[in-house]
Amino acid sequence: MSNETICAMATAPGGALGIIRISGPQALEILSRVFSKDLSKAEPNTIHYGHIHFSGEGQEQVVDEVLVSVFRAPHSYTGEEAAEISCHGSRYILNKVLELLIQNGCRMATPGEFTQRAFLNGKMDLSQAEAVADLIASSNKATHQMAMSQLRGHFSSALAQLREQLLRLTSLLELELDFSDHEDLEFADRSELLDIAKTIDSHITRLAQSFEAGQAIKQGIPVAIVGKTNVGKSTLLNQLVGDNRAIVSDVHGTTRDTIEETMEINGVLFRFIDTAGIRNTTDEVEQIGIGRTYAAIEKARIVLWLFDQQPSDADITDMEERCQGKTLICIQNKIDKADMPFMSSALQISAKHGQGLDTLRQAIYEGAHLKALNENDVIVSSARHYDALVRAHDSILRVIDGLNLQISGDLLSEDLRQAIDILAEITGGQITPNEVLGNIFKHFCVGK
Amino acid sequence: MSNETICAMATAPGGALGIIRISGPQALEILSRVFSKDLSKAEPNTIHYGHIHFSGEGQEQVVDEVLVSVFRAPHSYTGEEAAEISCHGSRYILNKVLELLIQNGCRMATPGEFTQRAFLNGKMDLSQAEAVADLIASSNKATHQMAMSQLRGHFSSALAQLREQLLRLTSLLELELDFSDHEDLEFADRSELLDIAKTIDSHITRLAQSFEAGQAIKQGIPVAIVGKTNVGKSTLLNQLVGDNRAIVSDVHGTTRDTIEETMEINGVLFRFIDTAGIRNTTDEVEQIGIGRTYAAIEKARIVLWLFDQQPSDADITDMEERCQGKTLICIQNKIDKADMPFMSSALQISAKHGQGLDTLRQAIYEGAHLKALNENDVIVSSARHYDALVRAHDSILRVIDGLNLQISGDLLSEDLRQAIDILAEITGGQITPNEVLGNIFKHFCVGK
Repeated sequence: MSNETICAMATAPGGALGIIRISGPQALEILSRVFSKDLSKAEPNTIHYGHIHFSGEGQEQVVDEVLVSVFRAPHSYTGEEAAEISCHGSRYILNKVLELLIQNGCRMATPGEFTQRAFLNGKMDLSQAEAVADLIASSNKATHQMAMSQLRGHFSSALAQLREQLLRLTSLLELELDFSDHEDLEFADRSELLDIAKTIDSHITRLAQSFEAGQAIKQGIPVAIVGKTNVGKSTLLNQLVGDNRAIVSDVHGTTRDTIEETMEINGVLFRFIDTAGIRNTTDEVEQIGIGRTYAAIEKARIVLWLFDQQPSDADITDMEERCQGKTLICIQNKIDKADMPFMSSALQISAKHGQGLDTLRQAIYEGAHLKALNENDVIVSSARHYDALVRAHDSILRVIDGLNLQISGDLLSEDLRQAIDILAEITGGQITPNEVLGNIFKHFCVGK
Repeated sequence: MSNETICAMATAPGGALGIIRISGPQALEILSRVFSKDLSKAEPNTIHYGHIHFSGEGQEQVVDEVLVSVFRAPHSYTGEEAAEISCHGSRYILNKVLELLIQNGCRMATPGEFTQRAFLNGKMDLSQAEAVADLIASSNKATHQMAMSQLRGHFSSALAQLREQLLRLTSLLELELDFSDHEDLEFADRSELLDIAKTIDSHITRLAQSFEAGQAIKQGIPVAIVGKTNVGKSTLLNQLVGDNRAIVSDVHGTTRDTIEETMEINGVLFRFIDTAGIRNTTDEVEQIGIGRTYAAIEKARIVLWLFDQQPSDADITDMEERCQGKTLICIQNKIDKADMPFMSSALQISAKHGQGLDTLRQAIYEGAHLKALNENDVIVSSARHYDALVRAHDSILRVIDGLNLQISGDLLSEDLRQAIDILAEITGGQITPNEVLGNIFKHFCVGK
């Protein structure tokens, strides 16, 4: 446990209130030096009214009338002695209070240091600590649910289950070794071991595969609107995005590469891939324009194919092939036009008049296949976790191969041990190198 | 006491933490409906860990893990049942929590409504309530001290003393009336009454006069830099302002008309009056340029007169006359030049090389005559208070005139009563019309 006491502003400047956080062994002692009451014996989880003051210019100067919340170790966010000062939200006051705390023995916290201490003091595991930053950055229902699920330990318990299975496999292999040593026999039936290994593999694979969805949810599900020029792509985009334009969170941690058109449907962020570069030049007119949309389709999870004439069977086959593994939504635009034939296999809309857009939005939402997304789903959203899962997957594949190839158990144990260690990196169950911790917490805001 | 329960965000969006405030008779009941624990019997000034949740999509949805601070009437900010929810600072979470509170019976608070309730429930008087907004907006030491002094009731107690003296005068006048009735005599010696009235008058005058200083402190002490062209006015301004540029608070309530050059010296804001319009046209060269600086001098409390040649005695006399009631600081610039004679009556600087600027800053600070400014000083900073003081002053002047002119006590009583009522407007001791309250609190931020 650290012997330094840290402090930081935990709220953004400019509100009615501002909160300053203090944590560390001396938290209440230091605070008592600048507060009008002695808090060193204060009961845990109690609130104290008083003022922050100092001696200056020959007299007592009152900085603010405040409320102090007292938390006692280990029942605080960090697990340490801690307090929160609720001040009037003036930048001058907040800076002055911080200045006094530092003069009396605190030091300014680094970004994420409170949460880092919570992790180091066993209040949460590393993946939960990372979820705190994601939670603060969450700006819609989907990112919020994903972060909340991780914070509440659903990912951690999935990993704990995996660890249990891996340990069981390890002990069964040891049993096999003992048996083979003593009886000097060939390898026993390994089908049970293989079953367990395959179950582990499928769980790890499922978790690793969820990363794509996790990334999409964080950054917005990529949607491409494709089709020939003048079929109404821009009109449709404007209509769709207009009222549902996503509010981009100003919280640190959700930086996107470029500013794009985004919108939310049922709390999920969708991001439209820029297809502005797709032009209908004369020498390409014959090809229905599909050729030029490949790049956009490639990057999308959902493809909106917009047309105002029945596409040929060949075009349809071609498009369906290109959209394998993606959601293809065929849309017939301009149904307000008198001479427009009804195309039964497509969704009918009039982008111009806003007809059919609710149905289309629902189709887009369903096309993201996030319906099952709920609080208990485990979705991997961190590249660090994904990387560990991929490496653990490699190890478990070597175990499966080894079992199949009748390789000796003591060799397989090594791979199992590796898989266990790699998964432990995610929750920080292993000793985590300072460099890794530094990388994780530097993306936090100060005060958390 | 209001029977509505209100809620609002009390912190600015974008921090690690966000605080939502609730106040009103149902505060703990409503909160208990969305919180994982029953708070209706919670002890006052205690903190409770749990989660905010709701039923949605067929299951329990957790919005956030939070800390709830419980305050019980009358020992809360508003004097009502109240609570504060400390959430993760995600805009999505904060909006969701507010939404749930509103669904369960709260309504959104209007700007300043918490403080308005504190006033209506007798937790503070009206001038203290106004100080809360000033305190939140305070961005330097001087504005902070002024607001803090008002919040801590120093203005209120000065007014209470005035009221006491006015009541004493009233009863003495009544005594005089009784006496004159019964004994059928001429008016008694009124010198004691006159003394009291004059003391009251001088106190009211002193308070009213402090308004100019109060305004200057709030908006920045106006400083004009005048002098001929090419004496180094712009260089001096840049040098002075450079490192000491004031941080303009982004808090509601400190709007200034235009963006000007401002700087802080010892925690006091100084504002430089734009003299860019003063040009040295050929036909006016003879007049040392003083003629064109009248407007700037007029608006200033401090005048920096910059020159690089000894001004004539006539010029000095003229400038001193124009600066009556203001602080005039004579400054000889360009002392780095070899052929520069020493002018003993001026402050020597080299704006170009930054020489003598610390001395000049100190002279500017002292020239503001705020040295005596400390926490216990009463400085009137509100136009509403100033207006009341001026009207009370008129009433007390009529009393003094009446006493001198031997006007009957029952006529003077009316004026005294008026003065008492007018002063009571400031603290809201009289019933305050809703319109006045509305005007006061609409300038607050929501959540305070």
